[in-house]
Amino acid sequence: MSAIPENFLTRTAALSAEITQPFPNSKKVYLQGSRPDIRVGIRQIQQTETEASFKSAPNPPIPVYDTSGPFTDPDITIDLTKGIPDVRATWIAERDDTELLAGPSSKYGQERQANPELASLRFEHVRLPRKAKAGKNVSQMHYARQGIITPEMEYIAIRENNCLNEMRNDPQYSTLLRQHSGESYGASIPEIVTPEFVRDEVASGRAVIPANINHPEIEPMIIGRNFRVKINTNIGNSAVTSSIEEEVEKMAWSARWGGDTLMDLSTGKNIHETREWILRNAPTPIGTVPIYQALEKVKGKAEDLTWEIFRDTLIEQAEQGVDYFTIHAGVRLQYVPMTAKRVTGIVSRGGSIMAKWCLAHHEESFLYSHFEDICEIMKAYDVAFSLGDGLRPGCLADANDEAQFGELETLGELTQIAWKHDVQVMIEGPGHVPMQKIKENMDKELEDCFEAPFYTLGPLVTDIAPGYDHITSGIGAAQIGWYGTAMLCYVTPKEHLGLPDKEDVRVGIITYKIAAHAADLAKGFPGVQVRDNAMSKARFEFRWEDQFNIGFDPDRAREYHDQTLPKQAAKVAHFCSMCGPNFCSMKITQDVREYAEKLGVSEDEAMKKGMKEKSIEFIDTGSKIYS
Amino acid sequence: MSAIPENFLTRTAALSAEITQPFPNSKKVYLQGSRPDIRVGIRQIQQTETEASFKSAPNPPIPVYDTSGPFTDPDITIDLTKGIPDVRATWIAERDDTELLAGPSSKYGQERQANPELASLRFEHVRLPRKAKAGKNVSQMHYARQGIITPEMEYIAIRENNCLNEMRNDPQYSTLLRQHSGESYGASIPEIVTPEFVRDEVASGRAVIPANINHPEIEPMIIGRNFRVKINTNIGNSAVTSSIEEEVEKMAWSARWGGDTLMDLSTGKNIHETREWILRNAPTPIGTVPIYQALEKVKGKAEDLTWEIFRDTLIEQAEQGVDYFTIHAGVRLQYVPMTAKRVTGIVSRGGSIMAKWCLAHHEESFLYSHFEDICEIMKAYDVAFSLGDGLRPGCLADANDEAQFGELETLGELTQIAWKHDVQVMIEGPGHVPMQKIKENMDKELEDCFEAPFYTLGPLVTDIAPGYDHITSGIGAAQIGWYGTAMLCYVTPKEHLGLPDKEDVRVGIITYKIAAHAADLAKGFPGVQVRDNAMSKARFEFRWEDQFNIGFDPDRAREYHDQTLPKQAAKVAHFCSMCGPNFCSMKITQDVREYAEKLGVSEDEAMKKGMKEKSIEFIDTGSKIYS
Repeated sequence: MSAIPENFLTRTAALSAEITQPFPNSKKVYLQGSRPDIRVGIRQIQQTETEASFKSAPNPPIPVYDTSGPFTDPDITIDLTKGIPDVRATWIAERDDTELLAGPSSKYGQERQANPELASLRFEHVRLPRKAKAGKNVSQMHYARQGIITPEMEYIAIRENNCLNEMRNDPQYSTLLRQHSGESYGASIPEIVTPEFVRDEVASGRAVIPANINHPEIEPMIIGRNFRVKINTNIGNSAVTSSIEEEVEKMAWSARWGGDTLMDLSTGKNIHETREWILRNAPTPIGTVPIYQALEKVKGKAEDLTWEIFRDTLIEQAEQGVDYFTIHAGVRLQYVPMTAKRVTGIVSRGGSIMAKWCLAHHEESFLYSHFEDICEIMKAYDVAFSLGDGLRPGCLADANDEAQFGELETLGELTQIAWKHDVQVMIEGPGHVPMQKIKENMDKELEDCFEAPFYTLGPLVTDIAPGYDHITSGIGAAQIGWYGTAMLCYVTPKEHLGLPDKEDVRVGIITYKIAAHAADLAKGFPGVQVRDNAMSKARFEFRWEDQFNIGFDPDRAREYHDQTLPKQAAKVAHFCSMCGPNFCSMKITQDVREYAEKLGVSEDEAMKKGMKEKSIEFIDTGSKIYS
Repeated sequence: MSAIPENFLTRTAALSAEITQPFPNSKKVYLQGSRPDIRVGIRQIQQTETEASFKSAPNPPIPVYDTSGPFTDPDITIDLTKGIPDVRATWIAERDDTELLAGPSSKYGQERQANPELASLRFEHVRLPRKAKAGKNVSQMHYARQGIITPEMEYIAIRENNCLNEMRNDPQYSTLLRQHSGESYGASIPEIVTPEFVRDEVASGRAVIPANINHPEIEPMIIGRNFRVKINTNIGNSAVTSSIEEEVEKMAWSARWGGDTLMDLSTGKNIHETREWILRNAPTPIGTVPIYQALEKVKGKAEDLTWEIFRDTLIEQAEQGVDYFTIHAGVRLQYVPMTAKRVTGIVSRGGSIMAKWCLAHHEESFLYSHFEDICEIMKAYDVAFSLGDGLRPGCLADANDEAQFGELETLGELTQIAWKHDVQVMIEGPGHVPMQKIKENMDKELEDCFEAPFYTLGPLVTDIAPGYDHITSGIGAAQIGWYGTAMLCYVTPKEHLGLPDKEDVRVGIITYKIAAHAADLAKGFPGVQVRDNAMSKARFEFRWEDQFNIGFDPDRAREYHDQTLPKQAAKVAHFCSMCGPNFCSMKITQDVREYAEKLGVSEDEAMKKGMKEKSIEFIDTGSKIYS
């Protein structure tokens, strides 16, 4: 019998139809690995046939790396009150290095569990928490360093390749696979991603697999500069606005549009319960900033924070299944004075909490002094560090200053401590940085933090566009992604102004999908230009429906097209609204080809005939063209 | 007595209030040059006082380069049927090298003038066209090369400096003027722009002042890589949609939001009359692609185009006042075959028209063979060339190919011919280019075209985001602007899908203002960080109204803010909706400062006290901080 009241269930049990409907003309297919339970879901965009008059190459399905999980699988019925299917439960159990606990071992988790007033909000089937057996380390890095290729690693290899081998072996894709050579700035991107390559990257610390043993629902993914650039999205209620059901809906919405990971930054009521709902339904890794909740526990008074409260919060969240923790252990007392002269001081919430604590106690941060204790918790659940940049610049003026770079060096020092414990680490980065100062951030991170994956917020390349900071930051994100950042934290149009609604989340995600994809293209990641090439071919052949469907946001593209030319006929028309029916350059190019044909000669021959008066000049260049 | 029917006047005579109202808390001020009629309008954003508790530096007005012309001057009443005031009429007349003609000298202009059916559409006060006296060259480049500093050049110097000297001499601006050093990739940006510097840049061909003698309404501006990066916007009706009044409204709308120049790409009905309305009301230079209208004159049949029809069109438009012509004279017959194997062939409308003509006639393009004749027309009215990239890539796959770069070399050859005639030239560039291939475009343009200003469309860094191509292209635009492109042609969210409406124009412009400003910052253009610094200070001090007003789009910022926290009180609140009242990092940083004060010591002292256990370490770094 459910303790959840009917009206809550009505609101919360189901996602809106716009989230669960498949993408137009897309099919969910599963690629199987070496065992039946390694099934990697990808999306295949089906294309229509080219009109016979074009005599073009075929239009095979375009595989798309898919973050939407079971939500877009029509064969799976989603009931949010039950949670989504486990992907990893067997793998975790098989390793036989964990045990089920009788219940939450954190004090706070126990209190919330026991509180009858919360029954109505509680996720119905809270699973028993799992923990490493005494003396065991259950991190993916630990396995990797022992030479073990986990099912997660194999899953990731299949996922990253996105049917590349299949396409290479299928002549239908031969022209679609053409791609410009990349400039990877020292990354080592393989021709094909093997499970062994994944293992090696994780073992070296160059890549992170966020995969808490208490979050078996995730579809494994990897963050590292030799893999596809990923994007993170943020959600979170605050004291001011938002509720549980809104946040769950936003999480699924984020997964639909392409968020690779998601941070729950809630600071309002019922953080614990909101998180449970999110985790049990999230196919992507979930990150948090535990200090936010710890601060709530001391009623917002930073100086009342203690290591014990923080530790209990880590355990509470680790046992719920949070996959990575942002921990601002680099905000050392010695750096705080460096921020006093800044234009915007400390803008990271976690950073400012810790700065305040340090000053109030005249002591070194407990996050720094207890860092090894934190590592012990992380490895018992496989929670990855996301070492927070508490001193990141909040404006161009403060970019690349000594506070920021001082902290970065400390993050490097902490990285080595974490790695000593085989605990996974990524490094958070800025922020607000003018373009000419971006690369220095990347280069310094690689050097100071020993190539641990960089995870940046933007950066925003100007401060003066509130309302458009998805764009100011998308410009910086594309560049830093190209230079080597492994994951880009999205920014929505509401940044600096308010909390994003669903539309803002969608716009923020698409902007960051663009930035990440542009970076993959620039780095030369194999196969990533296939989708661009398919789009271009569809454009040239006036396959309007395919153009909509191949894009990042088919709904928006269709909507925009229909605003000018709403009639169905226009979608098969050989022109677009910009130029009108007799003025389209695509059409004229077709005419050029047809004209050549009418002359009864091949296109090339027609050109040659046309050049007869200039034959010497032509031969000079022509022999190159047709060889 | 007006020949214009009442209902047309009602729709057309006045702009909408949203265009003519001044920006919130902004003042239009005029800077005077060496003579009373050199009056450069700038916008000053007034700021509010900082709350006393912050003890901060003052908040002086922020000067903004202003493209909105008389539309935002509350002292000027706009009547579109009369046109906006002349800025340059006296300057042009004073030079005494031009003469008024009795009427249009183009055949087509005469026909339209004589056609009674068009009376209702015609601009009421069509001015008599002006032309260089026989043997005279009236281009700004010609004057520059003779060592003459025109009033236009002085106007531009004042405008580019944007009160820089005044700010440097006013201690209120001292911290606001702090700026990161730039990376200009070989540009030669001066510490202050002098009229002589402007003259020298125009004389060398490194910069262009589009300023037709028949467009005295413009506020002079310059395009060159040693000046602020500019943006161009496009409007234009087509056979499918749009009307005269919509286009005029869009022109003024574009000027309001920051469009530096505007291209009228109309291809539909009444192109001639639409253009007249636009020119007589445009404070910014106007460009066109004359081949579009020439094609209309031969009913869309490219093969029926002739040099005579094209020539007549050039004269028709030059006498109306078009400031620059896109001319695709680089689409030579020899390059056409190179496009046959492309994924998207020829995507430039002008380029495809000329390709079709070349093939149909088996002849070299008449634009190429008559290039010197074109120069003769250009210098008689001071129309600048925008040498069109008819073979630009329409997709990533076709970027940087031999057709594109072959044409670019021809554009360089044509540049030298134009310069022989003292005719101003800029070079159009792509298009669709992955990030790692962008810089090659810029470098090659500088070399092949002898540093003539580059004017690019984006480039788009991926093909797969229809509906978001303002962003895909804004990413590329910011980069190529940084590398040296002088003007960025905007792209709206409707690119590839439909015609932009007013909202799309606004979003496209703001995106490109961001890209251009990011490029100015990265190049280190003096003074451009002032506005960013002012915004950051306003953020830190919770001056919400100032934050809205300092940004590119105050209305949008306010609207977004109000969606979460609509109450007026929230705009003076010391927190924002993202974190809630007790959870704001800005607030915590303030608390840190207040805490220090409560201890009865200075901030610095408080830090030092807090560091007592770590005094040695502190002194190591601290002495640097406070020196």
